[in-house]
Amino acid sequence: MATGHHLTEDQWIRRWLARWPRRLTSGVGDDCAVLPAPAADHDLVLKTDAIVQGTHFTSNDPPRHIGQKAVNRVLSDFAATGATPLTLLVSVGLPATISPAVVEQCYAGMARAAAKFDVTLSGGETTRSREWWFTVSGLGQVKKGRAVRRDTAAAGDFIFVTGTLGGSLRTGRHLTFTPRLAEGQWLAARRLASAMMDLSDGLGKDLPRLAAASGLGFAISAGALPVARGSDAHGAVNDGEDFELLFTVRPGEIKTLMHAWPFDTKLTTIGVMVSGGRMDVDGLVFSGYDQFKKLKVES
Amino acid sequence: MATGHHLTEDQWIRRWLARWPRRLTSGVGDDCAVLPAPAADHDLVLKTDAIVQGTHFTSNDPPRHIGQKAVNRVLSDFAATGATPLTLLVSVGLPATISPAVVEQCYAGMARAAAKFDVTLSGGETTRSREWWFTVSGLGQVKKGRAVRRDTAAAGDFIFVTGTLGGSLRTGRHLTFTPRLAEGQWLAARRLASAMMDLSDGLGKDLPRLAAASGLGFAISAGALPVARGSDAHGAVNDGEDFELLFTVRPGEIKTLMHAWPFDTKLTTIGVMVSGGRMDVDGLVFSGYDQFKKLKVES
Repeated sequence: MATGHHLTEDQWIRRWLARWPRRLTSGVGDDCAVLPAPAADHDLVLKTDAIVQGTHFTSNDPPRHIGQKAVNRVLSDFAATGATPLTLLVSVGLPATISPAVVEQCYAGMARAAAKFDVTLSGGETTRSREWWFTVSGLGQVKKGRAVRRDTAAAGDFIFVTGTLGGSLRTGRHLTFTPRLAEGQWLAARRLASAMMDLSDGLGKDLPRLAAASGLGFAISAGALPVARGSDAHGAVNDGEDFELLFTVRPGEIKTLMHAWPFDTKLTTIGVMVSGGRMDVDGLVFSGYDQFKKLKVES
Repeated sequence: MATGHHLTEDQWIRRWLARWPRRLTSGVGDDCAVLPAPAADHDLVLKTDAIVQGTHFTSNDPPRHIGQKAVNRVLSDFAATGATPLTLLVSVGLPATISPAVVEQCYAGMARAAAKFDVTLSGGETTRSREWWFTVSGLGQVKKGRAVRRDTAAAGDFIFVTGTLGGSLRTGRHLTFTPRLAEGQWLAARRLASAMMDLSDGLGKDLPRLAAASGLGFAISAGALPVARGSDAHGAVNDGEDFELLFTVRPGEIKTLMHAWPFDTKLTTIGVMVSGGRMDVDGLVFSGYDQFKKLKVES
């Protein structure tokens, strides 16, 4: 099978673009992409995120899923802000040992994930490297004043998560999850989330981050955790890569939220924010996920 | 000396931010950065670019220069569009063997390069990896309709370059160049450049790209090339990494351009665009630079 080192950079870019639907590209080929600015009552929203072979995916994962994950991780951050992603820029570091067929499937996975949410590609770059990595940067918009942050929770707010937690790496869900864009945008538009972030590193790491950003502590109930099938409470807290939404809700808004929630996505109250820095973890170990300490999933 | 693997991701981010002047940060710490949209008479401009150890820099290069290059490569693309860069997102792949002191110097180089052009940092991410790389994504603005492209040259337009060409890798200029932002913005604001791009891969590769994008050929004069001291015409065409501007000018505008050019930056006419795909290279070898074929600068 032909490998990548027979192709020039221009040839790579042509292959790349061939896999991305024409209606989803804009400005590719110039030094920069140029796009119309959003309407005046909107703010701009930006995010960059990287995935690296051996840390976030392995060479045994289906290439389409690798591409899908690279895009959906960024879309998940837009979800957590309550924003609408508009366009992506993608940089790829590509070893010569990766075959063009694998790369094309990977791009197809990216294009499919983007198309699902009407997100365009505004630029792509491929760089020769020793390991395989992707950086995806996204530009989006949100109505002025409606972006949800993580430092705005108040003591007494209840803590919610979407979906189920735990076992994401083991089951492959870390590759195929659906970013909670509709849910995040719905919460932001109705101002129902007082603070929000996505669970990329695990509740055990991300909830302390949200609490610290808000200058608060929290108390959670181990029995309330929405544990994914085949996982347990420890996994739900510490496995990471769930890409569910973690958000807080003022006590007076909970009835509205529960009544109006229009999604099939599971919605669970797991605890409450408290003043001071106290972390009441109900006997759970809150080690979290830190990729700097994590064992590589392949050598 | 302590190495990076003793630090968590959060600790890395704190170190990172400590090096970036406070007035230059916005939105760091949330899932996404949120910024005001530009005025309604502006378009948005986007670019992403990556540099990889062994291809774009070596571990022997001063860390400040590595950071400076990562930022200035992107600013050079904004220059080639005639746009104003506003803010950057930076992803770093970081091996455990790189010391915190080296990383901090590198960030200081980034911050200094950004500050020089009043560009802010809207997000940073550090990912554990086996090789050292940076991806910098930029968001900027340009007055509606004033962005300069590379596919808009016409037959008969004269070809110009800024500065001098050749020997950039050998002399270290590829690390310390100044992006031609003022020059690019000036040309775009006055509509003097009919097409423009930056010379990242060398005239021998980039001029054929501009010509192909415009559906044209070109004729250049070997004797007219502004050869950098210590280089020669072959180097000026093929070495790459000059980060000068390559642009075309309608014949009727040349007098205006030459008369009004307010910069110390050298300005040279090197040839003319011609109809058809003919490339008259005046005896020069136009091999260009292709990083996919390039020898690594370190093993």
